[in-house]
Amino acid sequence: MAARDIHGPEAPWKEFQVVGKSHRKIDGMAKATGEAVYADDIQLPGMLHAKTLRSPHAHAKIVSIDTSRALALKGVHAVITGADLPIKYGVIPWTPDETALATDRVRFIGDEVAAVAAIDEDTANAALELIDVEYEVLHAYFDPREALERSEPTIHESRKNNNVSKHVELEFGDVDGAAETADLVVKGEYQFHGSTHGAIEPHCAVAKVSPEGVLTLWSATQISHYVHRALARVLEWEPQKIRVIQPCIGGAFGGKSDPFSLEFCVAKLAEITGRPVKMLWTREEVFYAHRGRHPMQLAYRTSATKDGKITGVDAKILIDGGSYSSFGLVTTYYSGQLLTGPYDFPSYRFNSTRVFTNKPPCGPKRGHGSVQPRFAFECQLDEVAEQLGIDPIEIRRKNFHGEHTQTVNGQRITSSGYMECLDKVERGSAWRERHRQLPTGQGLGVAGSMYISGTNYPIYPNEMPQAGIQLKADRSGLVTVFSGANDIGQGSNSVVRYIVAEELGMDPTDVRVLAADSDLCPVDLGAYSSRVTFMVGNAAVDAARKLRAKLVAAVAEHWEVEEKRVRLIMGRAIDLEDTEKVLSTREAIQLAEAKFDTLGSTGAYNTPTLGGDYRGGTIGASPAYSFTAHIVEAHVDEETGRITVPKVWCAHDCGRALNPRLVAGQIEGSVYMGIAEALMEDHKVNRFGLHSGPSLLDYRMPTAIDTPDIETYIVESVDPEGPYGAKEAGEGPLHSAIPALANAIHDAVGIRLRELPFTPAKVLAALAEKRMSEGAAAGGAAAKAMAKKETH
Amino acid sequence: MAARDIHGPEAPWKEFQVVGKSHRKIDGMAKATGEAVYADDIQLPGMLHAKTLRSPHAHAKIVSIDTSRALALKGVHAVITGADLPIKYGVIPWTPDETALATDRVRFIGDEVAAVAAIDEDTANAALELIDVEYEVLHAYFDPREALERSEPTIHESRKNNNVSKHVELEFGDVDGAAETADLVVKGEYQFHGSTHGAIEPHCAVAKVSPEGVLTLWSATQISHYVHRALARVLEWEPQKIRVIQPCIGGAFGGKSDPFSLEFCVAKLAEITGRPVKMLWTREEVFYAHRGRHPMQLAYRTSATKDGKITGVDAKILIDGGSYSSFGLVTTYYSGQLLTGPYDFPSYRFNSTRVFTNKPPCGPKRGHGSVQPRFAFECQLDEVAEQLGIDPIEIRRKNFHGEHTQTVNGQRITSSGYMECLDKVERGSAWRERHRQLPTGQGLGVAGSMYISGTNYPIYPNEMPQAGIQLKADRSGLVTVFSGANDIGQGSNSVVRYIVAEELGMDPTDVRVLAADSDLCPVDLGAYSSRVTFMVGNAAVDAARKLRAKLVAAVAEHWEVEEKRVRLIMGRAIDLEDTEKVLSTREAIQLAEAKFDTLGSTGAYNTPTLGGDYRGGTIGASPAYSFTAHIVEAHVDEETGRITVPKVWCAHDCGRALNPRLVAGQIEGSVYMGIAEALMEDHKVNRFGLHSGPSLLDYRMPTAIDTPDIETYIVESVDPEGPYGAKEAGEGPLHSAIPALANAIHDAVGIRLRELPFTPAKVLAALAEKRMSEGAAAGGAAAKAMAKKETH
Repeated sequence: MAARDIHGPEAPWKEFQVVGKSHRKIDGMAKATGEAVYADDIQLPGMLHAKTLRSPHAHAKIVSIDTSRALALKGVHAVITGADLPIKYGVIPWTPDETALATDRVRFIGDEVAAVAAIDEDTANAALELIDVEYEVLHAYFDPREALERSEPTIHESRKNNNVSKHVELEFGDVDGAAETADLVVKGEYQFHGSTHGAIEPHCAVAKVSPEGVLTLWSATQISHYVHRALARVLEWEPQKIRVIQPCIGGAFGGKSDPFSLEFCVAKLAEITGRPVKMLWTREEVFYAHRGRHPMQLAYRTSATKDGKITGVDAKILIDGGSYSSFGLVTTYYSGQLLTGPYDFPSYRFNSTRVFTNKPPCGPKRGHGSVQPRFAFECQLDEVAEQLGIDPIEIRRKNFHGEHTQTVNGQRITSSGYMECLDKVERGSAWRERHRQLPTGQGLGVAGSMYISGTNYPIYPNEMPQAGIQLKADRSGLVTVFSGANDIGQGSNSVVRYIVAEELGMDPTDVRVLAADSDLCPVDLGAYSSRVTFMVGNAAVDAARKLRAKLVAAVAEHWEVEEKRVRLIMGRAIDLEDTEKVLSTREAIQLAEAKFDTLGSTGAYNTPTLGGDYRGGTIGASPAYSFTAHIVEAHVDEETGRITVPKVWCAHDCGRALNPRLVAGQIEGSVYMGIAEALMEDHKVNRFGLHSGPSLLDYRMPTAIDTPDIETYIVESVDPEGPYGAKEAGEGPLHSAIPALANAIHDAVGIRLRELPFTPAKVLAALAEKRMSEGAAAGGAAAKAMAKKETH
Repeated sequence: MAARDIHGPEAPWKEFQVVGKSHRKIDGMAKATGEAVYADDIQLPGMLHAKTLRSPHAHAKIVSIDTSRALALKGVHAVITGADLPIKYGVIPWTPDETALATDRVRFIGDEVAAVAAIDEDTANAALELIDVEYEVLHAYFDPREALERSEPTIHESRKNNNVSKHVELEFGDVDGAAETADLVVKGEYQFHGSTHGAIEPHCAVAKVSPEGVLTLWSATQISHYVHRALARVLEWEPQKIRVIQPCIGGAFGGKSDPFSLEFCVAKLAEITGRPVKMLWTREEVFYAHRGRHPMQLAYRTSATKDGKITGVDAKILIDGGSYSSFGLVTTYYSGQLLTGPYDFPSYRFNSTRVFTNKPPCGPKRGHGSVQPRFAFECQLDEVAEQLGIDPIEIRRKNFHGEHTQTVNGQRITSSGYMECLDKVERGSAWRERHRQLPTGQGLGVAGSMYISGTNYPIYPNEMPQAGIQLKADRSGLVTVFSGANDIGQGSNSVVRYIVAEELGMDPTDVRVLAADSDLCPVDLGAYSSRVTFMVGNAAVDAARKLRAKLVAAVAEHWEVEEKRVRLIMGRAIDLEDTEKVLSTREAIQLAEAKFDTLGSTGAYNTPTLGGDYRGGTIGASPAYSFTAHIVEAHVDEETGRITVPKVWCAHDCGRALNPRLVAGQIEGSVYMGIAEALMEDHKVNRFGLHSGPSLLDYRMPTAIDTPDIETYIVESVDPEGPYGAKEAGEGPLHSAIPALANAIHDAVGIRLRELPFTPAKVLAALAEKRMSEGAAAGGAAAKAMAKKETH
């Protein structure tokens, strides 16, 4: 592929006008003033309200369903069951194991069984009580290890004789050989608990069938395009008869990345009743719907030379998938594939198995699949450093993989600002003066991580663009961006505005953005895997440059000068060699509209497919990787076991920061979420499979008061392929927060917590164990490690 | 200009698949089921309601306005007067003589003086009563002749010493010489009354300023683009900060072709109050707003040879413009320029003067400016035929101007199906067996006419396209059309759907159309002068062919065949030489999206500027002309003077009929409207200047029962430059209905009514006069004519 001038505006103007500045978010004022329209704000004439009947059993066969009494209730317009929507789907096309409503089996408490549309929610709820379902209860799995070992009953009939959702085992280099020749081998087992997204807005969807037979679905989704595809499949409608619109969204974090039961139900109920239908899930239902962080049991073995060079990493991971596949295929790969940076190690193996259990299904949550292994590995790396007597930051520097390299598992690393990230947090936290030097009960911990900027593979195989943008410009001086991307609060609409304004030299507020309306916008694949800024941003650059070329050509012709003299900047076209020549952007557009006719352009992005020595001719998971370093300060109360985090230093390499304020917001949100799930959140069921506390009172999320001070450092490595060099910022900065906290706890009180969340009880137990082992054991950490090596 | 393949799809498929068929209108079901959203259906949170204070005087100075009592009323949020919106505007940029609210002068009873925004209409109305205005009454003009002759006071200060709005005098050839050498000269004076549009939907506008500072105006307008420009001018806002949206519209007929006071008022009130503001005019207010048919006093002199060849036409026209310019400049030109077809006459002169009077302003109504002269001339032509003893149809055939010719005043005539129109109505009405052969009291009359298909000149000088279209296509198989055109019920959204479907070989219902939203759609100049099908249709052809080329190229590459073998038809791509090769349109789009990236295209239309021997290097008023012939059957009750019209035969040459059902609807509507204003409607004021009956009870419009049977004939001349050969159909078929009726009345009872409307009183008076003159006069019609010639 030919080199692209993607880094910045063309010479001789080296400075950005819009990019890199802290502009207001495009929807900031609308959200602050209450103007923003969310799915539940949509009210349509004659609209019905729908509710869902859910399974009270964790695992059961449905023997019969009788909806007649519900249908007879005054005010009820329709009742549907699995028989009305029998076609299976899944966000990943290879694992279609869900139905909108259970057809013959329920697989967790809360699984959807029937839906009612009625004149109001109360009537719909009353009707749910009148639906008679006969169940035949089956053995339910709550322990993933039992699910792995026991084959009867299977949770999904399609999986013959086992409950394995996905198994991936890949080895790169000679891991066992590395362990045998290593100076130090550290082994450990880790448990990562489940946590959920906690988006403030519950799931909500509204459907309507137009008189001409077009189904419109408004849904709080972060994957409009996949919902569009799933609707067409399940409803058996032609996709061009379906319009999917994502209204303003109140948080997602991965929790709105699947097609959900309510989207199919409102569509079907609208089709049946001829009326608009809305379904708004309660908070309780959102907890059932879940698709959040997978619990994982992780066993790691890290081999190193005595001077701290990692020679091999060997991982075995058991993933608790809950009741359905969701993105589990991807989770299983990500649990192994994304660990191989920012460090260089010559051998690596992972063996990951995702099993089904009878719990709410797990899926992607911020840092999908890779937060859990990152925790385990970065804790283990801390142990290696400790045992070798190397500073934890130094061991990370020592193993740094470098830029323009390739990882052991074939990931093409281009830009990497990881070393600068380490420098920033080291200096900011006064690490050298404070690490291992704070009073007992106080500690600092460090960790690093790497994350993707979008995936190189669309989830369904095709050669079409992964991201598309269409522009319109006209004589009013307005440029409109039609973006397929789902703005879920991360600011994708803002980003495309900045980019188009930068390219066309416009005031950003003169760029309007319409997004995520399938009738009006080009296809983008959705807001997941931190792909939007990188991919949609590049599509926006592409589209804007095509339009800019027309404006420049028209102005140059008008002035009778060479095109290279024309610069679009700050709402004007100027002649670089004649300061007298100035036109407004509006005038430039008018000249172009006269010269070229009605002005529009399209832009697209697809990941490059590089051949050469990249394994299999591909470039790995992503076109670019972001890097993060955290230092966490932890205070541990040895009497109560309570951990507080007064401060976190987080440096994140996001490539070029298109809007530093938004990047800082993403970093802060990630740190918040990481610390939250490390200390407080725990998404689990009781021994009957019933959710332990499906409410925001019982499921403890930190408030602003609980949140540490966060010092953010934006590191701009300027990626060669990102838009102006930008990479992701929304997920990466979560990863290393958790192991950095674990390592800080060790620095504070000398215990290694390997099981999340870090509750006071676990702290107290670990402290007790430490006191016992300090009494019993002989020798230091290094000696223990050598012993381990000998018994390997 | 190179010849364009605009007539039809490419060889070897000669037949249209979509065009020429009677498809359902795109919004038909939505309108029939009540789903369609009109301006008054828009309800926004916190919305205020506005009302207008109107002048009780026909002509007065405003000495003072005190709004303090109104502002003090509970529930009132704002009161504005002319001082808040002092900038003058006009739809024609050379005649900006209106302000949103009167600044210092009122010019008709109903002129806008102040506006109030309040929590509801009742409160706003109550507040109007509390606004104290002191007027100094001025002499008011109700008679255009007085306005022409008297210079003090002037109605507009900008017009020094007279009340002339516009004067145009143009002569082509030697008119006086033709009269001198003619065998017959017929002179006559005609009076054409005013009539109004009577759209069912009153004017309504809603405005809202977004938190980011974008003003959105929803308005029942047929000229979104000019409203956009006028808003920017009057509000002094940057145009890119303004969004104008035309919702579904309940009729317009030219009556929504100006920017109206309410559009500025709601915008200003929304700006001031920070709340959405709606103003819905009452029916009474719509009558005041008017801008309908100009009353004209017309004097015609037609010269002819004895064998019926017209040698010269001389017209003097006094136009009563009412109180403001509106489109009056155009009206004045159109009153003369558009008469010069379908007949060939070597000399022509018109002398048209539009004057201001203190009545509701006049403007464009269906058949803008040319219905009145057409009436006069076609009546006079009937007299010529009568006096020369020539059949009225024959004299029209004799003078037919032909195709691919140029009129005496430089109009380039391309296609003309006028002769076929005459044939159709002649045969359909059994003219030869019935004309001059029906019992007394029953008669047949014929008339013909010509009208434009859009104007060659935009109303503000610019070189940008007159019409623009943008398309989006994506893998779902949907194609979306972004059209700037105002669909006012004439079906422009349907037309672009048919065209895009035809070009892309799609089912029309798989083409979605979004129109008249300035943020999302390219600029089109508006729905006036019958320009939309011709101009926007051509832009749609242009855009669709660009997209089709990509689809064809991608499919050809996929099949490894030459592109000429690939045909898109009926939702499929087929190989003309291998029936096994078939893809769906969706698959073809997907191949193209993979090959070319995200798919979009733009299309545009501008009228050709031809040099050569066309006068002044232009091609006259329009790129193409439609032609109509009417035969009307009239029954005249000689005792009561009452006229009934049992049947009308109307043949209209619309070029290619893109949708015959819509064309027939336009013809029927035009005939209805023509007969209505000939017999019933009369828009006038009393001696104080007060509207004679501003309600649908007093202003008599025919119901379905009053409407004649209409036999329509669609004549398809296939224009060389129209989209697939299409020309206009919405206005032309009105023109000749009125003179044909007048001529039928003459055939029935021997009277020539030269003053509209044809009320029973006028019939009875004419019958009395006829009886008197039959007693007094000697000699026949021919002798009288010869005598006239001698006295010339």
